[in-house]
Amino acid sequence: MQDAQKQAGRERLFVIKIGGNVIDAEQNLAAFLDDFAKVEGKKILIHGGGKIATKIGEQLGIESKYVNGRRITDSDTIDLVTMVYGGLVNKKVVAQLQSRGCNAIGLTGADGNMIPATRRPVKDIDYGWVGDVQATGLPLDTCRILLAHSLVPVFAPLTHDGQGHILNTNADTIASSIATALSNSYDVRLIYCFEKKGVLEDVNDDNSVITLITKDKYRALLAEDKLFAGILPKIDNAFAAIDTGVKEVLIGDAKDLLQNTQSQTTGTLITN
Amino acid sequence: MQDAQKQAGRERLFVIKIGGNVIDAEQNLAAFLDDFAKVEGKKILIHGGGKIATKIGEQLGIESKYVNGRRITDSDTIDLVTMVYGGLVNKKVVAQLQSRGCNAIGLTGADGNMIPATRRPVKDIDYGWVGDVQATGLPLDTCRILLAHSLVPVFAPLTHDGQGHILNTNADTIASSIATALSNSYDVRLIYCFEKKGVLEDVNDDNSVITLITKDKYRALLAEDKLFAGILPKIDNAFAAIDTGVKEVLIGDAKDLLQNTQSQTTGTLITN
Repeated sequence: MQDAQKQAGRERLFVIKIGGNVIDAEQNLAAFLDDFAKVEGKKILIHGGGKIATKIGEQLGIESKYVNGRRITDSDTIDLVTMVYGGLVNKKVVAQLQSRGCNAIGLTGADGNMIPATRRPVKDIDYGWVGDVQATGLPLDTCRILLAHSLVPVFAPLTHDGQGHILNTNADTIASSIATALSNSYDVRLIYCFEKKGVLEDVNDDNSVITLITKDKYRALLAEDKLFAGILPKIDNAFAAIDTGVKEVLIGDAKDLLQNTQSQTTGTLITN
Repeated sequence: MQDAQKQAGRERLFVIKIGGNVIDAEQNLAAFLDDFAKVEGKKILIHGGGKIATKIGEQLGIESKYVNGRRITDSDTIDLVTMVYGGLVNKKVVAQLQSRGCNAIGLTGADGNMIPATRRPVKDIDYGWVGDVQATGLPLDTCRILLAHSLVPVFAPLTHDGQGHILNTNADTIASSIATALSNSYDVRLIYCFEKKGVLEDVNDDNSVITLITKDKYRALLAEDKLFAGILPKIDNAFAAIDTGVKEVLIGDAKDLLQNTQSQTTGTLITN
């Protein structure tokens, strides 16, 4: 299979998502960027926001508002996250990658109209300036051009509504939609960095990583009731990405990034 | 001359700089972006910061510090302007241009390593995280690629030191360096939007615009002591840009942008 694709001239692409736990700790971020810069071949980074937006928001008197446990993005909050995610975090990451010889270019989904989104419709809750993105077929022409010229796109978790407004969008979802859209040009491995080494067979044993989950294996694990319930949505999302063209999804620790770009991974590789 | 250049296949490029007076007033900005979106052909926008950074800085308890009338960019201030110029202002402009059918892409000088800068050396004053850029030969390969694909680069007045730090850089200087570097590929008109219709023969009469200043004309005006002293550095900088390859520099009102992209301008056209 791999050989056949290599013959067809398909190149590898890593779509890598990091969350707030990496962004918030300066040393973790520096170590991650050291590794990210060393990843060979085509790559894209999508970063979450981190707690710094909440901290700056508090200083600015912008309250974090929640309804039924879901964050509401009012006008002040969208300005706040546009500043913090799109400016402070994104441009710091870009400058630090540049200092490591990685030709990064920082973007939001508004730039080049790469990630158009729809403001979430109001049903019971008005989430405010929150954008939902399409799962397949994002218009990533500009991203393809950048990749073809060996640039490394770095996306903040922001999109736009095409009517002049920035929207707040979940970084995991952006990563999945980007990976899916680029799967018709590249063999994509979508890597989610989280706080564990991978999917654990025993949630209390960090060394019990299940290194490979196929659909058959997943069915067996579910039948045996072996998996921690909290991980199931991540695995379901991974298979949804695979069903729309992504070759592999890897769930692992940011610290293991380099190993997780190899064929032998320490994290959990999910594939058909 | 123009015909010869057209025969040689050189395309027009407008490098357009707007300052805080346009950024700060929502209606002025919307009207400007309406016009900017209508400018035909290749174009680049460079925006200043505006007073919003000072306002948000005050809310965050970041004092504006000055030494001998010059602003000092300490660590808190560079984070502030990275957020506000690189995030809030830049991405709002991009989203609003996208809503006008203009395929904008928001950038700093760190992105694609397009504007490397040197932290200003400490002599009498330590200006902090302020970057000086080279006047000629900026490595704008990525910018050329974007222009070739009909994208519209929108630059915030931020650069980087190649060692992981964002630097605060004068937007006029960035505009001039970009215009100069792209002059070997395009016939560049560099347009500075300011608060007057152009260079005035009588500083008290807004309708006394001098519509064309050549070097000979400039010498004559200087000999007659006709010009307001405050405008002389702008004209000197314009001729410096022209001496390094820029075809024309236009100084005019943001409201007159569309007319000032034509051959008959209402502002002041400066050329050899």
